[in-house]
Amino acid sequence: MSHEIDLSKYTVRTDLVIESIKEKDIKGIITNQKKIDNILIDEVIVSKEAESYCGKKKGKYITISFDDVTDISNQKKVETVLVSQIKDFLTYMNILDSDKCLIVGLGNINSTPDSLGPKVADSVIVTKHLFDLDGIDVLDGYRNVSSFKPSVLALTGIETKDSISGIIKETKPDFVVIIDALASSSIDRVNKTIQLTDAGIFPGSGVGNSRGELSFKTLGVPVIAIGVPTVVDAVTIVSDTINYLMKKFSYSKKNFNNVKNKLKPITSINYLEDQLDNLTASDRKKLLGEIGKLSEDEMKQLIFEVLTPIGYNMMVTPKEVDFLIDKLSLVISNSINRALHPNVKIID
Amino acid sequence: MSHEIDLSKYTVRTDLVIESIKEKDIKGIITNQKKIDNILIDEVIVSKEAESYCGKKKGKYITISFDDVTDISNQKKVETVLVSQIKDFLTYMNILDSDKCLIVGLGNINSTPDSLGPKVADSVIVTKHLFDLDGIDVLDGYRNVSSFKPSVLALTGIETKDSISGIIKETKPDFVVIIDALASSSIDRVNKTIQLTDAGIFPGSGVGNSRGELSFKTLGVPVIAIGVPTVVDAVTIVSDTINYLMKKFSYSKKNFNNVKNKLKPITSINYLEDQLDNLTASDRKKLLGEIGKLSEDEMKQLIFEVLTPIGYNMMVTPKEVDFLIDKLSLVISNSINRALHPNVKIID
Amino acid sequence: MSHEIDLSKYTVRTDLVIESIKEKDIKGIITNQKKIDNILIDEVIVSKEAESYCGKKKGKYITISFDDVTDISNQKKVETVLVSQIKDFLTYMNILDSDKCLIVGLGNINSTPDSLGPKVADSVIVTKHLFDLDGIDVLDGYRNVSSFKPSVLALTGIETKDSISGIIKETKPDFVVIIDALASSSIDRVNKTIQLTDAGIFPGSGVGNSRGELSFKTLGVPVIAIGVPTVVDAVTIVSDTINYLMKKFSYSKKNFNNVKNKLKPITSINYLEDQLDNLTASDRKKLLGEIGKLSEDEMKQLIFEVLTPIGYNMMVTPKEVDFLIDKLSLVISNSINRALHPNVKIID
Amino acid sequence: MSHEIDLSKYTVRTDLVIESIKEKDIKGIITNQKKIDNILIDEVIVSKEAESYCGKKKGKYITISFDDVTDISNQKKVETVLVSQIKDFLTYMNILDSDKCLIVGLGNINSTPDSLGPKVADSVIVTKHLFDLDGIDVLDGYRNVSSFKPSVLALTGIETKDSISGIIKETKPDFVVIIDALASSSIDRVNKTIQLTDAGIFPGSGVGNSRGELSFKTLGVPVIAIGVPTVVDAVTIVSDTINYLMKKFSYSKKNFNNVKNKLKPITSINYLEDQLDNLTASDRKKLLGEIGKLSEDEMKQLIFEVLTPIGYNMMVTPKEVDFLIDKLSLVISNSINRALHPNVKIID
Repeated sequence: MSHEIDLSKYTVRTDLVIESIKEKDIKGIITNQKKIDNILIDEVIVSKEAESYCGKKKGKYITISFDDVTDISNQKKVETVLVSQIKDFLTYMNILDSDKCLIVGLGNINSTPDSLGPKVADSVIVTKHLFDLDGIDVLDGYRNVSSFKPSVLALTGIETKDSISGIIKETKPDFVVIIDALASSSIDRVNKTIQLTDAGIFPGSGVGNSRGELSFKTLGVPVIAIGVPTVVDAVTIVSDTINYLMKKFSYSKKNFNNVKNKLKPITSINYLEDQLDNLTASDRKKLLGEIGKLSEDEMKQLIFEVLTPIGYNMMVTPKEVDFLIDKLSLVISNSINRALHPNVKIID
Repeated sequence: MSHEIDLSKYTVRTDLVIESIKEKDIKGIITNQKKIDNILIDEVIVSKEAESYCGKKKGKYITISFDDVTDISNQKKVETVLVSQIKDFLTYMNILDSDKCLIVGLGNINSTPDSLGPKVADSVIVTKHLFDLDGIDVLDGYRNVSSFKPSVLALTGIETKDSISGIIKETKPDFVVIIDALASSSIDRVNKTIQLTDAGIFPGSGVGNSRGELSFKTLGVPVIAIGVPTVVDAVTIVSDTINYLMKKFSYSKKNFNNVKNKLKPITSINYLEDQLDNLTASDRKKLLGEIGKLSEDEMKQLIFEVLTPIGYNMMVTPKEVDFLIDKLSLVISNSINRALHPNVKIID
Repeated sequence: MSHEIDLSKYTVRTDLVIESIKEKDIKGIITNQKKIDNILIDEVIVSKEAESYCGKKKGKYITISFDDVTDISNQKKVETVLVSQIKDFLTYMNILDSDKCLIVGLGNINSTPDSLGPKVADSVIVTKHLFDLDGIDVLDGYRNVSSFKPSVLALTGIETKDSISGIIKETKPDFVVIIDALASSSIDRVNKTIQLTDAGIFPGSGVGNSRGELSFKTLGVPVIAIGVPTVVDAVTIVSDTINYLMKKFSYSKKNFNNVKNKLKPITSINYLEDQLDNLTASDRKKLLGEIGKLSEDEMKQLIFEVLTPIGYNMMVTPKEVDFLIDKLSLVISNSINRALHPNVKIID
Repeated sequence: MSHEIDLSKYTVRTDLVIESIKEKDIKGIITNQKKIDNILIDEVIVSKEAESYCGKKKGKYITISFDDVTDISNQKKVETVLVSQIKDFLTYMNILDSDKCLIVGLGNINSTPDSLGPKVADSVIVTKHLFDLDGIDVLDGYRNVSSFKPSVLALTGIETKDSISGIIKETKPDFVVIIDALASSSIDRVNKTIQLTDAGIFPGSGVGNSRGELSFKTLGVPVIAIGVPTVVDAVTIVSDTINYLMKKFSYSKKNFNNVKNKLKPITSINYLEDQLDNLTASDRKKLLGEIGKLSEDEMKQLIFEVLTPIGYNMMVTPKEVDFLIDKLSLVISNSINRALHPNVKIID
């Protein structure tokens, strides 16, 4: 069947750098990982030469991974990490306390999985109009901040890049913070990851329409992009599951004689950490036939070819999306307020 | 008490030209009235020389007055009138079928009485992105239309005029249609009037903050403004009522011996058309003491001075505002769609 | 003109006992006032014999009056007072910690000024389903609580009293807490007052439709009603203003020679505390003619007769109603949670 | 691997009878299919004896399947079919024109995929309060209808069955129409199917919590349930895809020498109708290894066992869910209005 596969057709739908790089020691990519309070922080630096390999632009990427943001105490922990990561980015990019910021919330407020950006934009503290007032002293401890919600092409008819450019030319911010809902290429990252980068953002890439790069290159000012994956496509769900199936098989093989495991209920065995190291080509073939011979990319391509002609490669989102997006937009807007304005009080 | 009155302090809060001109034969103002299906259409043309008199900019103003837009058949009648008035304005302003339009919805989507503009902007048909596609033929019977919601200063930190200017410079429309919720200076116009004008608009004038003129002069392209009064201030409610009180007294005086009236229930007598022609100065004084001697403007100034120091000159809106704004935004977006795109089917 | 007045026609539209009793020493009414942190707490006990006088049912009424609930620190103060007042009511009504509670949020979630009840009902902590689980131990420090939103007659076709009765019969709570948006008869109470009572509630009385008493008598279990005035009618705005006009006149008369006042800007003089004690009948007549001779009730009746036939005695609400209702529902749901469940942590 | 499978663990998550019966000629199940305007109508009658086989209660089930409800002309076609199917059910159940109806909208208005029921309940025409008015003549051409939204257990603490029972006992309707969002066991039915039945409904079965049967047996009055699948679980997406993979393989095998197909783009081949009739056991094994040997139920069980321990068997919903639910609730409320009240005008 593999003779039918055209690998040029399926592009993995992910906006996350952490999903684009799979091997650790690649020329031009530096990675670093730390863990605070069960929250994982991955730093990836992509060099110019590595761009073509990983499909991501040159720049620094921070990926914050967490389990659950619906629990109030966990939410506060994620917020603390995010505040400190945004501040580090400001320092890293040589942004001064006196630099003016435009916050841009991408997405469609009327479509729940896509409403993260506009919700954050509505909740950040803006001050530009106060700084603009004649005779007002500069607000001590507050930065000059404004916000903008470009909405989406289908509702406005205007390219997102064009409307943001227009606002930048007219209001002259020194840097831009852009918030967007992203697409992920793995189930376990949906609503559980925040990515920060200075490499720019490609709005709509998650839903198949690239609508113009938003970056220093196209906007003329430094850009910090903050994104959260809120949707995943059906190809991802299926290929992830087949991958888990193999991990479970590998895990079972290793633990065949482990009496302790036999006593555990099936729902308590977490085999996700299995490295598939003991699964031979013959094992894979036995388990999954011709399918088992495919690489991950070939597998995704095949599933893409199965689902697309019949119209079922839809983008999906968890059932609890309304509640999750509310929480995530609160975490992000609180963090931005605290990172941009030194004097914002922390009201927990 | 009148010696305390400083007439410079209270500006009548109205965005409606029909409320700004009170006498009919003024130099430099031409008025014309017609009635279609119980809907009143007032045309007012203000010349340069009359600007200072009526406090309104030079231009043409159309005021459409109706009773009730919650009734489905009445709603369709208002829509028909509005479509034809918008088309007449396009002709009057020499706007061609091939001219590109930007629709701007002013206001705050999160505050019901102020959400008319954004709701209309969300419901109009946009086509600019389709025209922009390489290789697409011009859509037959559809105009090139885009839309923009600038939100409000307190949420964005950006002057409305600045963000609209930015969008215009980047997207180069040939004309702009702006929709806004207005303030009225009389109770009976709230949610029952639509004003169209080519004279520009002053966003926020209704709520006491002038946030920069939006007009040909400031934006560089022709502007059609469509507004609906959705709020009224407390001064207006009180002074209107005192005015109605005098009309009722005058009406009673005239109809003192009208036996037929005595048999009518009090709630069925409509004295609003009374012209106050038989109310002498002495009558007024007898009825209302010193207050009766005041002109309408002096009365408003006095009430303003009474309510302002104690913080009660609030802007109010009818209790049913959610329902009314939904209906009005439907009427306006339907009408814009039908007036701008010849091929839009009328789905009633 | 007063010969035309029929006092039976206009009923003052107020759900607040504090507005129904005007003189302090009436047989059968006990009042008591205290102030905590600028928040006024009025306790009124109406006896059976006083019912006909004040138009309010026998029972205890607590009125909490505050300035502003949009300020976060003030909001916390109101919450603290409300928690303690609800707890006092539970004690006063002999309600035990083990008694089961049904929380009922009256009103229409789709009409902002009327959405207070449903919003509170959506935000309270419910536990009944957990207590109902077989084998679960009683939750330590949590009461058995359920909630119900009956919506409104026009949307359901069902009397509010009937649907609440049905739920009570089926779920058997020991007492009921009912939350509703009320009508006020004075501008200065709108969104600035919370009333608690054990005397029951008459839903819809504020908007002219009495839809069946909700009380111990009709529901068969003790009822605590919590209400906030969110609307006022036009008659109220006008009569309040005429009253303020007289106070201002009286204040000016007293302070005629007060040089200090002459230097103050007009907006800084608060004459609301004036007791009208030096305003003679002749003063009133000079100021307001025949109108000045009317009592407050006669005045309201007259204004009612002026506005009603022409359809302008609408119920109105401040322009900022969306924001105010959100804050007030947060204050009330937080307070109920803290008063009903000893173990709820205070997350400020 | 199959020795590890415990088939008792995974219950296929479907509320649709059409998915529960797979073979056509079963004793005790009568099926019938017709097609109107590209809309498929399946009638299934389950007898008492067939209950245990298909896991569905005795009764009549109508399944309406359509492609797309976002297109206005298609939407009207679905509406026409639904009106006629509801009317047929009323006749079939011997419900008279004078019988009183209670419409119940199950679900959580704040969670988009679960908001179908409450949205329909908010949009149906209610008349009970008008019939209840003393002295009002029966409304000609209108039925006595009321509505109720029980919300969900987690928000109210009250079992849905209990609150509906309470309302029924108090208001005494002759029959009940219940609307709910369902779970589907196949991707291609999500938001594209409406099921009607007189066999009752099990709220929450789709999301794993059975919260009490709603049927003639438990409520004491006839029940018509109207449901739309709006969510699907991850197990379903994966097993559907593996099934499609086999169909595609089978289709390719059959059409290997079909030159015409080779010229078609891959996205235009619809192999869904393939019956898998030429796929031998050996073919399956070659293609999918051990996995290929499993029956559909065993496959689902296996995937369930893979996804559940790692927490990824989430319920998902398409990204466009907000828009789809709005359209579907409009179609259903319009249809109910037209089927229940003979005199409702069709405003298309």
